[in-house]
Amino acid sequence: MELLERRIRADGEVLPGGILKVDGFLNHQMDPQLLMELGREFHRLFAGEGVNKILTIEASGIGPACFAGLVFGCPVLFAKKNRTRNLSGEFWTSTVFSFTHHVENTILVSKKYLGPGDRVLIVDDFLANGAALDGLITLCEEAGASVAGAGICIEKAFQPGGERIRARGVRVESLARIRSMSDCGEIEFC
Amino acid sequence: MELLERRIRADGEVLPGGILKVDGFLNHQMDPQLLMELGREFHRLFAGEGVNKILTIEASGIGPACFAGLVFGCPVLFAKKNRTRNLSGEFWTSTVFSFTHHVENTILVSKKYLGPGDRVLIVDDFLANGAALDGLITLCEEAGASVAGAGICIEKAFQPGGERIRARGVRVESLARIRSMSDCGEIEFC
Repeated sequence: MELLERRIRADGEVLPGGILKVDGFLNHQMDPQLLMELGREFHRLFAGEGVNKILTIEASGIGPACFAGLVFGCPVLFAKKNRTRNLSGEFWTSTVFSFTHHVENTILVSKKYLGPGDRVLIVDDFLANGAALDGLITLCEEAGASVAGAGICIEKAFQPGGERIRARGVRVESLARIRSMSDCGEIEFC
Repeated sequence: MELLERRIRADGEVLPGGILKVDGFLNHQMDPQLLMELGREFHRLFAGEGVNKILTIEASGIGPACFAGLVFGCPVLFAKKNRTRNLSGEFWTSTVFSFTHHVENTILVSKKYLGPGDRVLIVDDFLANGAALDGLITLCEEAGASVAGAGICIEKAFQPGGERIRARGVRVESLARIRSMSDCGEIEFC
């Protein structure tokens, strides 16, 4: 998506170690007008899929998911991260390893809000190793909900998550796919 | 706000101990159409205040803040919660005690995105003890930003936060103010 790629080039910051900081417009400070356009693009891509629920994970997925939900006209559910394993039976749970914080989180959603009747579009800000997305797909499987696909703002195509999850049979649409980032800050899109 | 009060009566759940669960439409599963109306109401209340930034705190403040930002046409910044105290000098920080999780969090925002030029509307889903709101106001003071006020979705007026923060000189506008909740689930609004 041209609009997002331009914004990444203009305001993204490449740090050593394959890190892309987009905290000025996507995942710390957010630009609602941009996110609304991303929501419209997700809707264009997944229209006709019968989506009745947007699922994301706290915290930085919530912004993009909210605007997608506004365009789709459906509820937005966010999975919560929790370090405790002792949860009552009222949640669907899954386990996600965070490569950013080097900690394993239990993620959970209430059984009240995800079930066999749901056709889910998963939305997240980033796809890199795919751990969060794997966890969200597993939550849907646990719940018996069907996954229409995943709408990702930025995919680091040089990391293994996207390929693995597509091989799992899930449709993944990423609005900006980064092929490579050089140490001098240049970004090449797919 | 009539629309929100009706929704709380219809879908909110009162639990013993003064707990109100609104996780079906506000802070786990979110209704984007409702949140958009709340955003419009915050704009009506704070129009003419020169707001150029919405500030909230992860995770459940992000939804309401995003829609407010869309209506105001300004960026939305969310403070992150962090248990570590060892942070580099690039953040404004403050401390917030969570009554829900009985843990003290450091909250932080990047110095890049909050400074003396900013006129801030703080948005959050709940105001009860006011710990999160106190922390966000302190962040703004640290940054030299001016606070136009706080836009709250639901205030538990029977808890001390709202009174204390108004006494601090901050304008607080709550779209639904709960005077009392009975053990049999009845909700009385102010």
